[in-house]
Amino acid sequence: MNKQKNKELGFGKNVDSNFRYIKRDGSINVKRKGLPLFRPFDLFHMLITIGWVQFLFLTALSFLLINGLFALIYFFCGKGAISLIDYSSPVKTYWDSFFFSIQTITTVGYGGMRPILLSTKIISSVESFIGLLGIALVTGLLYGRFSRPVAKIKYSDLAVVTPFKTGNAFMVKLANQRSSKLIEAEVSMFLSYSIGEGRVNLPMELDLKKIDFLAMTWTVVHPINENSPWVGLTEVDMKKGNAEVVILLKAFDDTFSQTVYSRTSYKYDEVQWGAKFKTSISTENNQVTVDLDRIDELEVVELNT
Amino acid sequence: MNKQKNKELGFGKNVDSNFRYIKRDGSINVKRKGLPLFRPFDLFHMLITIGWVQFLFLTALSFLLINGLFALIYFFCGKGAISLIDYSSPVKTYWDSFFFSIQTITTVGYGGMRPILLSTKIISSVESFIGLLGIALVTGLLYGRFSRPVAKIKYSDLAVVTPFKTGNAFMVKLANQRSSKLIEAEVSMFLSYSIGEGRVNLPMELDLKKIDFLAMTWTVVHPINENSPWVGLTEVDMKKGNAEVVILLKAFDDTFSQTVYSRTSYKYDEVQWGAKFKTSISTENNQVTVDLDRIDELEVVELNT
Amino acid sequence: MNKQKNKELGFGKNVDSNFRYIKRDGSINVKRKGLPLFRPFDLFHMLITIGWVQFLFLTALSFLLINGLFALIYFFCGKGAISLIDYSSPVKTYWDSFFFSIQTITTVGYGGMRPILLSTKIISSVESFIGLLGIALVTGLLYGRFSRPVAKIKYSDLAVVTPFKTGNAFMVKLANQRSSKLIEAEVSMFLSYSIGEGRVNLPMELDLKKIDFLAMTWTVVHPINENSPWVGLTEVDMKKGNAEVVILLKAFDDTFSQTVYSRTSYKYDEVQWGAKFKTSISTENNQVTVDLDRIDELEVVELNT
Amino acid sequence: MNKQKNKELGFGKNVDSNFRYIKRDGSINVKRKGLPLFRPFDLFHMLITIGWVQFLFLTALSFLLINGLFALIYFFCGKGAISLIDYSSPVKTYWDSFFFSIQTITTVGYGGMRPILLSTKIISSVESFIGLLGIALVTGLLYGRFSRPVAKIKYSDLAVVTPFKTGNAFMVKLANQRSSKLIEAEVSMFLSYSIGEGRVNLPMELDLKKIDFLAMTWTVVHPINENSPWVGLTEVDMKKGNAEVVILLKAFDDTFSQTVYSRTSYKYDEVQWGAKFKTSISTENNQVTVDLDRIDELEVVELNT
Repeated sequence: MNKQKNKELGFGKNVDSNFRYIKRDGSINVKRKGLPLFRPFDLFHMLITIGWVQFLFLTALSFLLINGLFALIYFFCGKGAISLIDYSSPVKTYWDSFFFSIQTITTVGYGGMRPILLSTKIISSVESFIGLLGIALVTGLLYGRFSRPVAKIKYSDLAVVTPFKTGNAFMVKLANQRSSKLIEAEVSMFLSYSIGEGRVNLPMELDLKKIDFLAMTWTVVHPINENSPWVGLTEVDMKKGNAEVVILLKAFDDTFSQTVYSRTSYKYDEVQWGAKFKTSISTENNQVTVDLDRIDELEVVELNT
Repeated sequence: MNKQKNKELGFGKNVDSNFRYIKRDGSINVKRKGLPLFRPFDLFHMLITIGWVQFLFLTALSFLLINGLFALIYFFCGKGAISLIDYSSPVKTYWDSFFFSIQTITTVGYGGMRPILLSTKIISSVESFIGLLGIALVTGLLYGRFSRPVAKIKYSDLAVVTPFKTGNAFMVKLANQRSSKLIEAEVSMFLSYSIGEGRVNLPMELDLKKIDFLAMTWTVVHPINENSPWVGLTEVDMKKGNAEVVILLKAFDDTFSQTVYSRTSYKYDEVQWGAKFKTSISTENNQVTVDLDRIDELEVVELNT
Repeated sequence: MNKQKNKELGFGKNVDSNFRYIKRDGSINVKRKGLPLFRPFDLFHMLITIGWVQFLFLTALSFLLINGLFALIYFFCGKGAISLIDYSSPVKTYWDSFFFSIQTITTVGYGGMRPILLSTKIISSVESFIGLLGIALVTGLLYGRFSRPVAKIKYSDLAVVTPFKTGNAFMVKLANQRSSKLIEAEVSMFLSYSIGEGRVNLPMELDLKKIDFLAMTWTVVHPINENSPWVGLTEVDMKKGNAEVVILLKAFDDTFSQTVYSRTSYKYDEVQWGAKFKTSISTENNQVTVDLDRIDELEVVELNT
Repeated sequence: MNKQKNKELGFGKNVDSNFRYIKRDGSINVKRKGLPLFRPFDLFHMLITIGWVQFLFLTALSFLLINGLFALIYFFCGKGAISLIDYSSPVKTYWDSFFFSIQTITTVGYGGMRPILLSTKIISSVESFIGLLGIALVTGLLYGRFSRPVAKIKYSDLAVVTPFKTGNAFMVKLANQRSSKLIEAEVSMFLSYSIGEGRVNLPMELDLKKIDFLAMTWTVVHPINENSPWVGLTEVDMKKGNAEVVILLKAFDDTFSQTVYSRTSYKYDEVQWGAKFKTSISTENNQVTVDLDRIDELEVVELNT
C-alpha cells in the first residue's frame, strides 16, 4: 500500500461504500432536495442539455399546447369573434380558432381570419406578445444548445490492465467525437475504493498527462509501479473494495475558445485484466485516418507478474 | 494577536468602522455618484440581473406604453387614417388604434386594419422598424439572462463556532442551488474588524480550500489555532470590533465552461458560538440525497477551551 | 539610471521617438494597410464597438437605403405590379412602393398591398428573405454590443507626481464607470522614453499591484525610489525624452464572468508635478459613496527632494 | 544533435514519415471514421466555420429547397386549397404555391393567398412553426459566426534562414489580419523530422516568446545555436528528414475577451535559406503604418557559417 495523500472530491466521508461517484455519462450521482419550485435557470439548463429529439419534441408540444389553449379561449368568445371562421359546428370552430391562434403566435397574420370583438382583439394582442417572447426564447435555446462548449469524448467501453514495459499498466482509450479541435488536452485519474470502514481516493500518476492535439485516439496509461495505488491489488481486491476509477479530462476547445471538461468512471467490473487495445489508426496514401468504431477492440494478452 | 499580513480589499482605509463591506446577497455596499445619465450597458446589466417577475413586468409594461403612445399618434392622424377602424367614438377609435399598433409592432399585420394616409404609412413603418429592434433586444435580454454564468450558492443563514479536533473552528455551510455542475470549487475567507483607529482584513486559513465537485453540501472549516486571526478573540471582542467575515467562492461552471464567483459575508451577530451543523445528506438504496432545506439546521454543542 | 530589463511591447525598435503608443482612449496608435476589401468580421467589430448614436443611425440609414432601393425596383415593375398602389403619379407610386417594401422586409405584410405580377412576387420573396437575415443580424449586433465584456474605466485626466513617504511617487487615479462588478483588478505600468538614438520601455513597480474589489476609486502608486526608472529624472528630462507612461489594467468582470482589459497612457505633458488627488469618497449614515465627478480634483503640494 | 526532450503532440508514433501534421491553414491533417450520422453540433460547427460565400449560398439554397418542397405539398392539395392562386396551369399553380410557401415561412403573410382547406391550414401551420425555428437558427448561426473568437493571423508564405548576430536564425513573420486587438501574444515552435525509423518533435527556443501588443508585424526568431534542434542540419538534411516546423500562437482577443489560438506549419520546401524579410512598417507624420501586403517581401542575404 502506498502513502499518497487522500484526495478530497467533495463527496464527504460517510458515503455508502457501494456508491458510484460518477456515472458513465459523466453526470454526478447525487440527488438534491429542497430546491425552489420555480427555477427558470434549471429549466433552461435542462432544455440546453437534453437530446435533440427530446428538445424538438418538447418545443413542438409546447407550441401545440399553447395554441390549443388559446384556441379554447377564442372558441369561448362566441360567434363572430373572429372573421371568416366556420361557425357551423363546434369542432370546425375550434379548429379554425386553433389555426387563427397559430397565425397570431407565429406573427404570420394572413388576415383572412382577424379579431372582430374587443375580447378577441385583446387576447390576440396578448398572444402575439407571447409569440415574440417565445421566438426570443427558442432563438436563445437553439443558440445556447449549439454554442455551449462541451467536450464530447468517446471513452472505451472497458478499461484494461495490460503489460507495460517490465510491469503492467491500467489503460483507457479515448477520442474526440466532435469535429471541433481539442488542444492542450490533459487527463487526471484517481482510484476510489473502500478499505476497512472508510473510502479512499488516491491519485493515479500517468505516463503522459498532457498532449497538444487530441486529433487521434489517446491511450491514457497509468503504470502500475511502486507509486501506484494499484500496486499489489488483484482483480478480487478491486471487487471487494468496490473500486471505481474516476477520469477527468480538461481541454481547450478551439471552436469556441473555451476550456471544456469531460469525465467518466470505470467500476471494477468495467476493467478487463489481461487485454490490450488494438490500434484504430490507419495510414493510406499519406492520409491518417482514425476509426472511432474500433476504439473498443481488444485482444487478450498475458500480464507481467 | 497574530502577525499575518493585512489584505488589501480595495475599500480604502478611511472607511467608517460600522461599515459592512459585502451584503448577504453578495453585492458590494458602495454607492456611486457622477455617472453619465444615458448608460445603455448599465440598463442592460440591470435587466439581466433583476428577478424574473420584475423582468417580465418591465417588458410587458414597456410593450403597453410604447403601443399606448403609438395609438395616441394614430388617433391624432384623424378619421380615415387607418382602414376598418371604428370612428364612432373617441374611445373606440383609440382602442382600435391601440390594436393596430400592436399588430404592427409585433409584425402580425392581419391587414384588416392597415394604414391609408401617408402619415399613418410613415408612422407604421417607423413602428415596425422599432418592433424589429425590440424583438432583437428582448431576444438578447432573454439569452443574456439565461446564459450569464453565475454561481447561485446557498449559504447557511448563520455561521458557527464549533469544537474541532482539540480546539474550535469557525464553520460555514454552503451548497450549489442550481442543477449546473460546479467543479474545482475554491473558497477563501478573511476576517475584517476594527482595532484602535483602523480596520484590518486578515486572511483565515482553511482546513480544506478546494474540492473537485461541489455536488453535495460543503462545510468550510477555519480552525481557530495559533495562525488564526480569531485566536484569543471572544464573542464580545467580535461585537466590539464590528467584525465581518467575508467569504469568496470561485468555481468552474460546467454548463457554460466559465469561471464563476460568489461571495457573502457574516457580521458578528450572524455567528452562532457553540453550535454545529446537522448533516443534510442521506443515503438510501445506494442513492445519495442532499436536502438543501436542512442546510441551516443547527444543534448546540459545548466549545473546547 | 537603473538597470531594469527593457520590456518588449511589440512596437519594434525603429519607431519615431515622437510616436505615442497608446491613445488616451486605450486604442493602439498604428494604421494598417493591405487588408482585404471584404472583411465581415471587421465590419461586425466596428458595429459592435461604435457608440450607440452612430449604431442606431447606421442601422436606420441601412434600413432606409435598402427599402429605397427595393422601392425603386418595384417602381420599375410597372403598373399593376402591386395591388392597391396609387399609380396616379410617379411620386405617389414610388412612396407606395416604398411602404410596400417596408411591410415586406419587416414581415408585417398587412396584405392590402401585395405582389400581383410574377416579377414582384419574386422580388418580394427575395426581400422577405433578406429581411429575415437582417433581423438575425441586428439581433446578433445588439446582443454583441451588450454582452461584450469591456472594462469601462475612468482614468484621472492628469497623472501626478506627489510626495509619498520620505520621497515622491507617480500616481494615477481610476474607477469603474459601470455598474458591473470588477474583481481581482490588477494594474501594470511602464515608462517609455527616448534615450540617445533608441527608445526604452521600463516597468514601473507599484506599491499595490492588485486589489480584490474595484468598488471605489483606486489611486495607483508608483514610488520613485532607487528601483524606479523615474529616479533622477526631472519634468524637463521627461519632455526631452518624449516620455509616455502606459497603464494596463486587467480585472475579472463579475457580470459576464470574463477577464477584461483596459489601458491608457499619459504623455509627459499630462503629468502634474507637485499635486495630489483630493478624496472622492464620502461616508454618511453608514453609506459609502464614490463621486466619479470628483476623480480629477487636485490640490497643489510641495514635493520631497 | 542536441538532447532536448521529445515533445508529445498527440499524433502517436507510428505515423508515416511523409505525413504533414498541420496544414498551412492551421487545420489538423487527420481524417476520422465511425462518427454517428446525425451530428447537429458538427453541422453547426461547419456552418460557423465555412466562408461567407458558402454560408450565404447554403442558407439561400436551403431556403429555396424547403419552399420548393412545401410548394409541392400545397400543389398536391388540389384546386381551391389556397385562395387567389392561379389554377389555370400546373406551372402557374406551382409558382403561386411556392410564393405562398415563402409568405408563410417568412411570416410575411400578406393574406391575399391564404389556406382554405383543412389540409393547407395544417401544412401552413407546420410551415410557419418551421419558419420560426429557421429564423432562430439563422440568428444563432450569424451571431455564432461573428462572435466566435478566432485569431486570423497572416503568416509569411515562406519562412527564412537568415544571419542573426554571429550565427544564423530561423525566422517567420506574422501579423494580425483583423481589426480586433490581440494582446499578450505568445508563440511556440517545434521542429518535427524523421530520424532512422522514428520521428521526433523538438521544441525550438525563441529569442522573444511573448509581446504585449500584436499591433504591427512580428518577426519570430529562433536562433540556431547549440540548443537548437537545427544546429548542424543543412537544407538537404531537412528534405531527407521530411522536416516540418509547427508554429502555435496564443493571444488574448480584446474584443471578445477570450484567449484565441492560431497555428500553421512550414515544410522543408517552404523555408528559404539565405533570405531575410524586408520591413513592412513605415512612419510618416508621426503615424506608424503596417502594410500587410508586404509581409512576404524577401531579399537575398549571405548566411553566416
